Amino acid sequence: MKELGYYNGLIGEVSEMSIPMNDRACWFGDGVYDAELCRNYQIFAIDEHVDRFFRSAAALEIEPPLTKEELKKLLRELVLKMDDGNCFVYYQLTRGTASRVHTFPEGKANLWVTMTPRKINTDPTPISLITGEDTRFLHCNVKTLNLIPSVMASEKAKRAGAYELVFYRPGNRVTECAHSNVHIIQNGAFRTAPTDNLILPGIARAHLIKACKKLGIPVVEEPFSVDEMMAADEIFTSSSGALIKRADRIDGQTVGMKREDIFSALHKAVWGEFFEETDKKE
Amino acid sequence: MKELGYYNGLIGEVSEMSIPMNDRACWFGDGVYDAELCRNYQIFAIDEHVDRFFRSAAALEIEPPLTKEELKKLLRELVLKMDDGNCFVYYQLTRGTASRVHTFPEGKANLWVTMTPRKINTDPTPISLITGEDTRFLHCNVKTLNLIPSVMASEKAKRAGAYELVFYRPGNRVTECAHSNVHIIQNGAFRTAPTDNLILPGIARAHLIKACKKLGIPVVEEPFSVDEMMAADEIFTSSSGALIKRADRIDGQTVGMKREDIFSALHKAVWGEFFEETDKKE
Repeated sequence: MKELGYYNGLIGEVSEMSIPMNDRACWFGDGVYDAELCRNYQIFAIDEHVDRFFRSAAALEIEPPLTKEELKKLLRELVLKMDDGNCFVYYQLTRGTASRVHTFPEGKANLWVTMTPRKINTDPTPISLITGEDTRFLHCNVKTLNLIPSVMASEKAKRAGAYELVFYRPGNRVTECAHSNVHIIQNGAFRTAPTDNLILPGIARAHLIKACKKLGIPVVEEPFSVDEMMAADEIFTSSSGALIKRADRIDGQTVGMKREDIFSALHKAVWGEFFEETDKKE
Repeated sequence: MKELGYYNGLIGEVSEMSIPMNDRACWFGDGVYDAELCRNYQIFAIDEHVDRFFRSAAALEIEPPLTKEELKKLLRELVLKMDDGNCFVYYQLTRGTASRVHTFPEGKANLWVTMTPRKINTDPTPISLITGEDTRFLHCNVKTLNLIPSVMASEKAKRAGAYELVFYRPGNRVTECAHSNVHIIQNGAFRTAPTDNLILPGIARAHLIKACKKLGIPVVEEPFSVDEMMAADEIFTSSSGALIKRADRIDGQTVGMKREDIFSALHKAVWGEFFEETDKKE
């Protein structure tokens, strides 16, 4: 298959798949998701992603119709149907199918999966960012389908020729990007916002922190301001699709790029782990 | 038809309709909606609702695939297919169909309609409310499909045996309810939050303000606190489905119910207008 779609047991090319109009994704965006890279038909960091997926579901009181182990088995079986073993594995759970009423419906949650070919891209070329006010809800720790502010921010970044938009809350606190976390190198330390309700607890972020600890780079989990980001020695974004990126411009100003050594070490560490894990054949 | 579904020109019973998996409602809740009551096959306040629908679409830069007049004509034609001319007319616009990428896709927006039988319910029996923190995003003036916080709040109200949950922002400011606006009577005046980005500019709210002006009831468009609401002479909710409701309990405490005269006058005014408009046959 080129782009696989799965919905409650039905499988096809995603562009030819359809779902019931009354799935609550359609009326409320009432669901959660997770996603990760796959290389050589090996899904990267599947345990951590499935754990987070179940935590997101629990936060919204959506009961998964299968266990974590059953979901992993399903994802590993589905990926074998792909023509290309390098792909992006995406799955979501929505709160059932029912006439549009806000309160929870009777019946089971719906499980969706898509798999899309994706070149593994370790390109270390610096990116440019823009900033924008964070007007999102206060549940950013849950990976939900309520993503309009991230859609609008991503489009704004694209129009500005930037890779991502960095959100800040009133008072200047940087939170994260439209679909990445953001971190800085300051005084030789890796500084990143704490995992409260204003940011997603990124799995690439967790891997960067683990790499810092191995490499002896101090980690400071404290919020930082836009001004601190602009003055930082390095600015990194991280996401499950692009484990680490380095920024050289924010809002048109030259920034960062002062600790090539730290960037290179982290880039090598997280991609090294990725290639090692996805080299394994079961 | 019992419950009509419409999607880009296809029509059927909504429970049997399906939509493309790649509609952006499915991945991002990327769309806007509006909804209103219909009686005797006459759609109430259709001009105001369609105007607001187009404003919501413009706020998200989604281009409707038809004009306002074409949409009204379509809704009036579709309602004639219903077995029951007393129904709830719902329509939404989603940002096209494409593989899941945050930035805007090429191609046209998708138009959805549902029509569901609904008894016209003017019951003046008082309701009970609960309160909860407003953790929603800062675009509550736009009627989007990103509704998880309203879903969770509605379920919380239902479990508490309440009709609605009243949201308040930090600092105690009352905004609105999960799917209604909220207003108080204080010193003989109708006090309601101003239409900023924290509340939906409700059409029933606008009709209540119009009625107040006719009846000589002063209108104060200023935010009020939870404490002011608890101490108010009356607490009203309004929505397009239930034009006005009166609360006698909030979080288990006895509240309001001190200005029967004002409640009765407003109830009579807004339902009177509703029946007059929906009596007309074209």
